Amino acid sequence: MVNEGKFGVALVGCGIVGGGTARVLTEDIEYLQKRTGIPFYLKYVVDKNFDNARSIGIPEDLYEEDFNKVIADPDVFLVVELIGGLTVAKKIMTKALEAGKHVVTANKALLAHYGPELFALARQEKVSIGFEASCGGGIPIVKALTDGLLANRIEAMFGIVNGTCNHILTEMSEKGQSYKSALQSAQKAGLAEADPTLDVTGMDSAHKLTILGSLAFGERVNLDTIPVQGIDTLDLYDVETGKELGYIMKLLAVARKTDKGLAFSVSPCFLHTSHPLARVSGAFNAVSVYGHAVGHTMYMGRGAGSSPTASAVVADIIATALEITPKAFETLNFWPDQTEEARQLPPADISSRYYLRFMVKDRSGTVARISSLLSEYNISITALLQREETSETIPLVMTTHEAREGDMLKALAAIEKLEEVMETPFMIRIIEEHPEQVI
Amino acid sequence: MVNEGKFGVALVGCGIVGGGTARVLTEDIEYLQKRTGIPFYLKYVVDKNFDNARSIGIPEDLYEEDFNKVIADPDVFLVVELIGGLTVAKKIMTKALEAGKHVVTANKALLAHYGPELFALARQEKVSIGFEASCGGGIPIVKALTDGLLANRIEAMFGIVNGTCNHILTEMSEKGQSYKSALQSAQKAGLAEADPTLDVTGMDSAHKLTILGSLAFGERVNLDTIPVQGIDTLDLYDVETGKELGYIMKLLAVARKTDKGLAFSVSPCFLHTSHPLARVSGAFNAVSVYGHAVGHTMYMGRGAGSSPTASAVVADIIATALEITPKAFETLNFWPDQTEEARQLPPADISSRYYLRFMVKDRSGTVARISSLLSEYNISITALLQREETSETIPLVMTTHEAREGDMLKALAAIEKLEEVMETPFMIRIIEEHPEQVI
Repeated sequence: MVNEGKFGVALVGCGIVGGGTARVLTEDIEYLQKRTGIPFYLKYVVDKNFDNARSIGIPEDLYEEDFNKVIADPDVFLVVELIGGLTVAKKIMTKALEAGKHVVTANKALLAHYGPELFALARQEKVSIGFEASCGGGIPIVKALTDGLLANRIEAMFGIVNGTCNHILTEMSEKGQSYKSALQSAQKAGLAEADPTLDVTGMDSAHKLTILGSLAFGERVNLDTIPVQGIDTLDLYDVETGKELGYIMKLLAVARKTDKGLAFSVSPCFLHTSHPLARVSGAFNAVSVYGHAVGHTMYMGRGAGSSPTASAVVADIIATALEITPKAFETLNFWPDQTEEARQLPPADISSRYYLRFMVKDRSGTVARISSLLSEYNISITALLQREETSETIPLVMTTHEAREGDMLKALAAIEKLEEVMETPFMIRIIEEHPEQVI
Repeated sequence: MVNEGKFGVALVGCGIVGGGTARVLTEDIEYLQKRTGIPFYLKYVVDKNFDNARSIGIPEDLYEEDFNKVIADPDVFLVVELIGGLTVAKKIMTKALEAGKHVVTANKALLAHYGPELFALARQEKVSIGFEASCGGGIPIVKALTDGLLANRIEAMFGIVNGTCNHILTEMSEKGQSYKSALQSAQKAGLAEADPTLDVTGMDSAHKLTILGSLAFGERVNLDTIPVQGIDTLDLYDVETGKELGYIMKLLAVARKTDKGLAFSVSPCFLHTSHPLARVSGAFNAVSVYGHAVGHTMYMGRGAGSSPTASAVVADIIATALEITPKAFETLNFWPDQTEEARQLPPADISSRYYLRFMVKDRSGTVARISSLLSEYNISITALLQREETSETIPLVMTTHEAREGDMLKALAAIEKLEEVMETPFMIRIIEEHPEQVI
């Protein structure tokens, strides 16, 4: 086993993912050096507090608080940034790049907000950024887009990219739990943060969509322009009613190429139970990618957690040491600092099928009034569900054929004004299996 | 668009896959050069007959019959071998490697039989062999094993790696077709060769298991030692009876690490309908890989066909031009010419659950006699199915708990000797979802 020389790794941030990475880089290093033929080794674990590092048995002689000392060490070829967040992480990454160190990171928020700037800096300093761990945990989805599928024009991408949300939705769907109690059980199981806002609002998925969409289409996606809806306002009633109609609810990150531009969105969606993503449950993530040559491909795995994420981080370290990542970064022409901003289809022009729920007073003619308003906006109904109920306000559920979102919003605004409609109508997209267009 | 210089590609064999590859390399070359930053281009299409090339519009000035002229051209950096088979393909590949050309191939049979020899020759000549297209068509599964999952010790791999068989089994299972008529419909749909022997006997899957298993475990798999059973002797009765019991029949290539060595097999298996591979239907392929850090990951896509395979071939050309494949080939230490022969668990020691069918004369005590013979060999029954039938010989179906295959074979031999047992008992493995052992 080698533990000196120019392939030293500095790991910054020894929390859940950092700890898992440090464990792989110490416990398995002999195996990894032998298997890869590369004498890389963990030289520093940088943090302010080493309680977690100590508790999982990371050797104390690796601990270092002074990051400046670390980047001054010529034997450090790569800095792994695993502290998360935007402020300190950006400083750390900038310093590392400016010192001519390659960087590997799992920080999707940072790359979604500042990717182009950081990639440009890396390019200027002739180093690379590895970010497999930022999207889909241990699933090699970045590699698929930047290597395995390079021969393709990507036509569409659909991703379940947040394990917390997928766990919560699975609990709601399979165990009939409310959103609130499913969230609590996810927190108890360590599958949701104490502050789950980034996850449940869909923002974490939007970060990943920004990164993956930019790579897939070779156009720079602007995070701020993605319409994002989370799962935090969902009602168990709709999850269960959709299920009766043959649909499973998933939080989907969607990117599709259309004649008029790219259509991006993050929102809870209904998938037919036969859809390939419908069965991806619990903490698993999966991304479906449609290429013009390859057709449909799907990648599934654990989207978060200590050791799955560590798997991606360590693969990036190896690919950087092998000079694969630097070479790809130097030669390929679709990194976010090199591409034009994506031509995006305005959300109003996105078309899809819909599930609608209206809370109405039970009066004669309500269904007729609602469906005629829908019809005015070119929206036609595929199914309708109204149960016999005793309460005064009852749910009226409909599914529709494909409709423009702009038309749908106008129709719903008109319907909301009807006297017998008691709440803002609830609307959710139904995503059909994407058609393959294999040449 | 560039079409001169040192990144010339020579494509040998312009059939189904060759034609698809030639199309991508002509129709999409401008896009690909721009996207990848690499001025690669198709310089020669080598064949004896150019009818197919002509029919799909490949420019005539690329046609060349003299392979010696092609490898003498210093502007050819890479030869794509797409003729298939063992004899001519081996000569072509050997000549190309000896001339110092990189090779890209989709030829699983060639690599399964002569991989170590060909890899050693490539190493000697300081060139590389790209073979993503040899396993799983357009699915980047070779990349996953040689790059994305490098940080892992692979614990198990389960693959549906033959689209012809999966199509036939899907037709049998979903439409109640017999094996024979499902095969005929696959042939009509262009999904099975006129001579489907390699596919339906499981041999094609064994070729792919040899290649993928060697990479996953870093031990050289010997094709001849893999127990292989095809789908060509299957009876619709078992497909349908299994389905009633909650199982889907799939031809599975299996590689598992056990305490006593690696367990390989290719055979039709029953998967519970909830198993992640059970829903992979029609011409799709999928491979589940279990790593010690990443846990379960799955890769799905079209396993064959012109353009999905071309997608993998062209990705390999790009990765070779980028020097990614040569660098990985030079540095990593688990290529089949470098590793020891796999320590294999003798097939008799492989344990699994089983589905059994006995054709018996309807007499009192038969079930008792059969189950007591099973019990003598430590095999216990989990379910039993015998329908009221009028015919003299009736099927008696059982499923069992986990048992050693050696014990099972002995028990079945003893049972076959019973007077009321009219045929050789039918036995098929039931594969449970592999347990994840995430660190």
